[in-house]
Amino acid sequence: MQMRRFETPGIAHYAYLIADGGKAAVFDPGRFVEPYLDAAQELDAHITHVVETHRQEDFTMGSAYLAQLTGAQIVNGPFETFGHGDLRLDDGDCFSLGGLTIRGLHTPGHTPESMSYVVYPPGNERSAWCVLTGDALFYGTTGRTDLPDEDKSVQNAALLYDSVHSKLAGLPDTTLVLPAHGPGSVCGSGMAEKPFSTLGEEKQYNEVFRLSRDEFSRKKGGERLPRPPYFRLMERVNLKGGLSPCQRIDAVPLFEADDFADKSAGSLVIDAREPEGFAGGHIRGSHSIWLGGLPVFGGWVADEKSPVYLITDRTADVRQAARHLARIGIDQIDGALAGGFGTWRKSGLPIEMSGTLTPQTLADNQDRFQVLDVREADEYAEGHIPGAIHMYVGYLADNLHKLQLSKERPLVVTCGVGHRAGLGVSILLRAGFREVLNLLGGMSAWKASGLPVEH
Amino acid sequence: MQMRRFETPGIAHYAYLIADGGKAAVFDPGRFVEPYLDAAQELDAHITHVVETHRQEDFTMGSAYLAQLTGAQIVNGPFETFGHGDLRLDDGDCFSLGGLTIRGLHTPGHTPESMSYVVYPPGNERSAWCVLTGDALFYGTTGRTDLPDEDKSVQNAALLYDSVHSKLAGLPDTTLVLPAHGPGSVCGSGMAEKPFSTLGEEKQYNEVFRLSRDEFSRKKGGERLPRPPYFRLMERVNLKGGLSPCQRIDAVPLFEADDFADKSAGSLVIDAREPEGFAGGHIRGSHSIWLGGLPVFGGWVADEKSPVYLITDRTADVRQAARHLARIGIDQIDGALAGGFGTWRKSGLPIEMSGTLTPQTLADNQDRFQVLDVREADEYAEGHIPGAIHMYVGYLADNLHKLQLSKERPLVVTCGVGHRAGLGVSILLRAGFREVLNLLGGMSAWKASGLPVEH
Amino acid sequence: MQMRRFETPGIAHYAYLIADGGKAAVFDPGRFVEPYLDAAQELDAHITHVVETHRQEDFTMGSAYLAQLTGAQIVNGPFETFGHGDLRLDDGDCFSLGGLTIRGLHTPGHTPESMSYVVYPPGNERSAWCVLTGDALFYGTTGRTDLPDEDKSVQNAALLYDSVHSKLAGLPDTTLVLPAHGPGSVCGSGMAEKPFSTLGEEKQYNEVFRLSRDEFSRKKGGERLPRPPYFRLMERVNLKGGLSPCQRIDAVPLFEADDFADKSAGSLVIDAREPEGFAGGHIRGSHSIWLGGLPVFGGWVADEKSPVYLITDRTADVRQAARHLARIGIDQIDGALAGGFGTWRKSGLPIEMSGTLTPQTLADNQDRFQVLDVREADEYAEGHIPGAIHMYVGYLADNLHKLQLSKERPLVVTCGVGHRAGLGVSILLRAGFREVLNLLGGMSAWKASGLPVEH
Amino acid sequence: MQMRRFETPGIAHYAYLIADGGKAAVFDPGRFVEPYLDAAQELDAHITHVVETHRQEDFTMGSAYLAQLTGAQIVNGPFETFGHGDLRLDDGDCFSLGGLTIRGLHTPGHTPESMSYVVYPPGNERSAWCVLTGDALFYGTTGRTDLPDEDKSVQNAALLYDSVHSKLAGLPDTTLVLPAHGPGSVCGSGMAEKPFSTLGEEKQYNEVFRLSRDEFSRKKGGERLPRPPYFRLMERVNLKGGLSPCQRIDAVPLFEADDFADKSAGSLVIDAREPEGFAGGHIRGSHSIWLGGLPVFGGWVADEKSPVYLITDRTADVRQAARHLARIGIDQIDGALAGGFGTWRKSGLPIEMSGTLTPQTLADNQDRFQVLDVREADEYAEGHIPGAIHMYVGYLADNLHKLQLSKERPLVVTCGVGHRAGLGVSILLRAGFREVLNLLGGMSAWKASGLPVEH
Repeated sequence: MQMRRFETPGIAHYAYLIADGGKAAVFDPGRFVEPYLDAAQELDAHITHVVETHRQEDFTMGSAYLAQLTGAQIVNGPFETFGHGDLRLDDGDCFSLGGLTIRGLHTPGHTPESMSYVVYPPGNERSAWCVLTGDALFYGTTGRTDLPDEDKSVQNAALLYDSVHSKLAGLPDTTLVLPAHGPGSVCGSGMAEKPFSTLGEEKQYNEVFRLSRDEFSRKKGGERLPRPPYFRLMERVNLKGGLSPCQRIDAVPLFEADDFADKSAGSLVIDAREPEGFAGGHIRGSHSIWLGGLPVFGGWVADEKSPVYLITDRTADVRQAARHLARIGIDQIDGALAGGFGTWRKSGLPIEMSGTLTPQTLADNQDRFQVLDVREADEYAEGHIPGAIHMYVGYLADNLHKLQLSKERPLVVTCGVGHRAGLGVSILLRAGFREVLNLLGGMSAWKASGLPVEH
Repeated sequence: MQMRRFETPGIAHYAYLIADGGKAAVFDPGRFVEPYLDAAQELDAHITHVVETHRQEDFTMGSAYLAQLTGAQIVNGPFETFGHGDLRLDDGDCFSLGGLTIRGLHTPGHTPESMSYVVYPPGNERSAWCVLTGDALFYGTTGRTDLPDEDKSVQNAALLYDSVHSKLAGLPDTTLVLPAHGPGSVCGSGMAEKPFSTLGEEKQYNEVFRLSRDEFSRKKGGERLPRPPYFRLMERVNLKGGLSPCQRIDAVPLFEADDFADKSAGSLVIDAREPEGFAGGHIRGSHSIWLGGLPVFGGWVADEKSPVYLITDRTADVRQAARHLARIGIDQIDGALAGGFGTWRKSGLPIEMSGTLTPQTLADNQDRFQVLDVREADEYAEGHIPGAIHMYVGYLADNLHKLQLSKERPLVVTCGVGHRAGLGVSILLRAGFREVLNLLGGMSAWKASGLPVEH
Repeated sequence: MQMRRFETPGIAHYAYLIADGGKAAVFDPGRFVEPYLDAAQELDAHITHVVETHRQEDFTMGSAYLAQLTGAQIVNGPFETFGHGDLRLDDGDCFSLGGLTIRGLHTPGHTPESMSYVVYPPGNERSAWCVLTGDALFYGTTGRTDLPDEDKSVQNAALLYDSVHSKLAGLPDTTLVLPAHGPGSVCGSGMAEKPFSTLGEEKQYNEVFRLSRDEFSRKKGGERLPRPPYFRLMERVNLKGGLSPCQRIDAVPLFEADDFADKSAGSLVIDAREPEGFAGGHIRGSHSIWLGGLPVFGGWVADEKSPVYLITDRTADVRQAARHLARIGIDQIDGALAGGFGTWRKSGLPIEMSGTLTPQTLADNQDRFQVLDVREADEYAEGHIPGAIHMYVGYLADNLHKLQLSKERPLVVTCGVGHRAGLGVSILLRAGFREVLNLLGGMSAWKASGLPVEH
Repeated sequence: MQMRRFETPGIAHYAYLIADGGKAAVFDPGRFVEPYLDAAQELDAHITHVVETHRQEDFTMGSAYLAQLTGAQIVNGPFETFGHGDLRLDDGDCFSLGGLTIRGLHTPGHTPESMSYVVYPPGNERSAWCVLTGDALFYGTTGRTDLPDEDKSVQNAALLYDSVHSKLAGLPDTTLVLPAHGPGSVCGSGMAEKPFSTLGEEKQYNEVFRLSRDEFSRKKGGERLPRPPYFRLMERVNLKGGLSPCQRIDAVPLFEADDFADKSAGSLVIDAREPEGFAGGHIRGSHSIWLGGLPVFGGWVADEKSPVYLITDRTADVRQAARHLARIGIDQIDGALAGGFGTWRKSGLPIEMSGTLTPQTLADNQDRFQVLDVREADEYAEGHIPGAIHMYVGYLADNLHKLQLSKERPLVVTCGVGHRAGLGVSILLRAGFREVLNLLGGMSAWKASGLPVEH
């Protein structure tokens, strides 16, 4: 038996390949399938099964495409929200992979169709070696429970609690737990950062085991997590097994400054540099989303129909930026600035600056500034700069009018470390605010500087 | 101005990318387009033109696919045999690429539609920097002239002579000559092995310049070169700009020995190992074609509809083997032996052996053996083993009955160095011959050993 | 916390990198350190500790070199056989890595100095997350116990049993076990093939837990495993933290056939092709060792002072072959055949053939052949071809005279699947035997063919 | 015959490998030799000669190291300034490489020892195929002539003119010219950007052919080019064949923010981000040198003994930054910020900002600002912002006191496109200036904006 884990940056997604006797199963593949093909080849194995734990909301799956390429069967459960599957396992059903036996368990709560898969080694169908839990069980916590229906989050948390306790808890303590996400994913909050974990370990420190059913339901059900608009698209495309990739994503047209200005006029322009670079100079009207943030925050400003133009630090970043967006179905990348922002800089075309501010300077001159905190509600609630106004960055563009912000006073935007604040700054500039400053290092730096926090 | 050359192994094909001012043109692309996209990105350039010198016969072009990916225009000439083109240049017409001017010249002879393209640097439309000649002018010779009509090869050679002398010879001697093929290509014979050449150099040693029109026509027109069956398919698909690649080619299913035996039964099995390995043990009925020979000799045994199964030395060779076949349109690679031939060896399934022989042993025991030479007619004519029977390897399977070969006597097969003989050996084994031996090192070793040669 | 495992092909060696808070520790590094540097960079971590479980016998360690490159401390135990260490942990001593606590445990038995290292997560110094066991505990078994003194193997097995039971068994069942070797290593036999295992799982199926102290000591102590001569060199160099690599290993001179013949005359020539290729034709006097077998069997024919010349299938294999040899300290690779064996074949220089035989043919003509089985004594004891003579391949060259083999009768050599038999064939050819045949697929194919086995 | 060119980014250096008959010569290798080894392997060739055109001043050569790795001979000329050579060719002497003949020609002027090498194809020792000219002949111009003695630049230009006209001009017009540098090198100015050129082409447009001896000597000898301090070190190490690389360069320790602050205190800190990022926030006291500028401008602030600490956009840039510095002998890279500047930002440690300014804003408010132009003297002379003060960035730190700059007024720094100005800004900040702004896009944007230029 062999196993490989595939980590997708930006969305903290884990896919897995498990192989035995020359056959391999890939669990929860994304649409860029090269790594799975490469691993199967390296292990002399043929991908015969593509297994889905649930209909993912946060990225486009690659199930249908990978199955088509390899001739594999798609394995999932009997539920409508799974869309198509070649082998639909009822709760407790098994299939074979080389000498392994793999059993499907219905573990709803994160989503109604969620399945977990227990892998038994050759000749030992009792002693589970690992369990692939999708978003039902993460390290330290579980998946969020508000997705199917925000108003039933508490009930769903109770359902998930029951799934874990009735279906998974009985497996051996030594069972390796292989979840679909790690810390940083939008599919949950509070995941522990560890390479691997076992069921026995989870029983000790995971909140689904440490809390009572009631405590857990209230805590998990009470979380208020953002629900990005691209989740709807993901649900739609993943019902059909996701999307196939397209080499076009690796062939984004590069334009010199004048051409870029012409082509991108009226379209969405995303500047994928770090916030200091954006503050030091950018194209008026562009949105600032740092490279690693594209596969989440790109989905707040673009959708699958938006023609997108990209600005990066350098040409070599364009492909990664485009793939990041394509992971959430934003495929219409119509151009990028050849050579990165420097090409625009030297062209003499107009450049807009915003600015930056250190925590100490803000603390020393707090009267001069309005402060806007664009983190999630739960983060804001855990402590913020005294007097800071709150609005989550994803909702900012549409709800700016609800905030009491003056265009006459300098405005400081903050978040955790400065990235989301960068997006906030760009939204405010687009809305006509003039003096908008990114608080360097955000609340991380503010707290590290020993400055006062309001709860 | 920047230039990159792309060499495709096995078919000695050269594609080129020329860039200026952020725009790039790709000349004669193949269907696996990653290298062109990578080079354009590295040069901060956008591929705006895909240029065809002629309808290639020896590989599937990637023009249409590359144009679709990048939004580029396809540039070629006004002739029907070019199929589709967005910009069809009449003889002498120009287009711009950044600051460059590129002029199309009609240079028929190899094929009726053949175009050459002259590149002029910025601000100097008189002094050509390079000329992309396709198969009209190679280093040391020209393309073959028998393809449009074998019976008009002499006339076509004269036409090609005229094209070169009237259209190209007047360019400056310093003009870099950039042909579509190098030595080893099936599109000509006798190419010189040199990295680059200029028109002035070619004038000194290229036979199209050293011979008179008559001499050249007779020599070139008198060549008898094999015409592999896949040429017809290439002509058909390249009329539409070739084929797009498919990631399926990188995902050939790998089978363990038993499964491989089941699946491949009745289908074409190609063994891509070196001839010694094949001689030492192989699967009965398989064809022996060494890895590097697949994009030519694969096309003698398979076509675009043949389900093909592959045997390699190791799993890591499967992709290259599949891509080699896909270069000539053989895309239906339905499986490969996981782990290479060793997987079959240890399975206990039946293995057939052929054998090998050194030149000296043959020379010392010539009475015992029949000798079959499977090289091209021109190679055979230039010197062969005394008494050797001749049949080109490509025609062998269909014409074996015409040869006076006895199944009762051991049969030695030879070629240049032993590769094509390997294919010959496998064809003879399939035809029921029992003792078939590959002459190690072929005529190269025979001659190096100082053994007698018959003309 | 983050973890990466590094698998070295051919020697089934596992090194590990564990990182936390920007600091990383590398456990049991080999001399080719790029993968560790790459992983540390990918994880934004600085390698501050290089940790040794024991003085490895089967490969050259890279501890001293990696420490020198990175400024890391070498961590090991207080024993003389560790050679140099910057931080020498007594049994139970700890050190910190970011927020992790790592405790050293003395677990002798495989070697007297063997240490295991328990890793505790931040804030939880009781609940071990993993234990790095070196060769003290593998999946399914333990390291061999005959290395320090073959005559005290039973006592050492008892000692190892005690180490495991007194030091490791008390850790939580969920503790991930991270050993230094997997199946295929010469440091043990009977390892299970699984990606990861926990202590709890090992308690269920590992023989050190399933057998009594006495049973285990007798079984383990009774194993008769080969002890390759390079073990002595490894012990010597690893006492000083191993060897640094040298780029020279990646720059093996390539020679055309004539030059190769001249240069290699009188030196050791290793042919790294598969056995069928060797049988079909090879250079007289060369040793046949397949590519993947070099880092073990290379050490039976070469030592650190032997000038070695390499023959491969293709040039691209030369680097891997050279690195494989360098892993056991054979650095004096003075040349390779440019272009692989094909270059020799076409040169007309002398070629020798051996041959191959299928199990069925042998079974049908058993009277005609002598059979030599070159597997390990334990493998032979578990079942062999009736009448087969036994001599382990490593001892064959020096002990051939002790066998009653006739040079007048054809000799069939066999092993597990045909690889080691290939080396055996080449040794016999060098000793003057004429008709030496490799049994294709070895005992694996023999048994799969349903032929009789003698015990 | 085969040829490969190797382009080193940042220093516009070209090395070449020429191979024939299994032997290869590498011309003017740098110290990072992997690409040469890889190319030789790909071409099935053995590097038998390492050839030097002259003692390079602008990068550390890799001759001695490459020769040691491969066993090659070092080929150069009889002059003392070449240091060691195994084969010292007198003017006109030849050596063989496979079937090629290579002739050395003494072509002094750029440096007294400069040699060119003419390559003749097999069987044709009259008709040169290419000439490797080192810095004697570039595309469009020649190497600078002020290096040996600034006061004898005019005489040296005349000498170089004579070298070109007497030694090279007589070669065939079709001879490919292969120089050691392209546009962007500090070894000359005004090189043409073209992929390849021939002697015939150069005769048409290269100033060494278009100007008379007098004109050329005056023009070339009158150039005033910066002479970075690292040239002295290069001359010293290259006298011995340069430096070997060290894997330590690929293992720069990564530090978290606090550790970085501690370790780097008092040492040279180089911030390799783009100028907008530096302006938006940086560590006080750091020098701003963009990534691609390190192998030139790093040598103005550091030398081989300076402990250097690096700040980049991301960890993945650290290796490239370190290699860039190592190219000019700056090997003492003692640390880098793990995770790039973002790690510092979120730490709450002090951050300094400078700022940026657009050309239009400067033009509209010229009275408010002092303007400092840090380009080369020749660039400044060709046109600058009215009223701008001039000082070349390399001389700025040591000569700041000579300029009449006020610390009370905002200071705008400019260069070509903003990169060198970034270094200028950081030098001024270190000197105590407070409000220092980088003119975005420099003179390129200024001119493109149609703003007035003073000559």
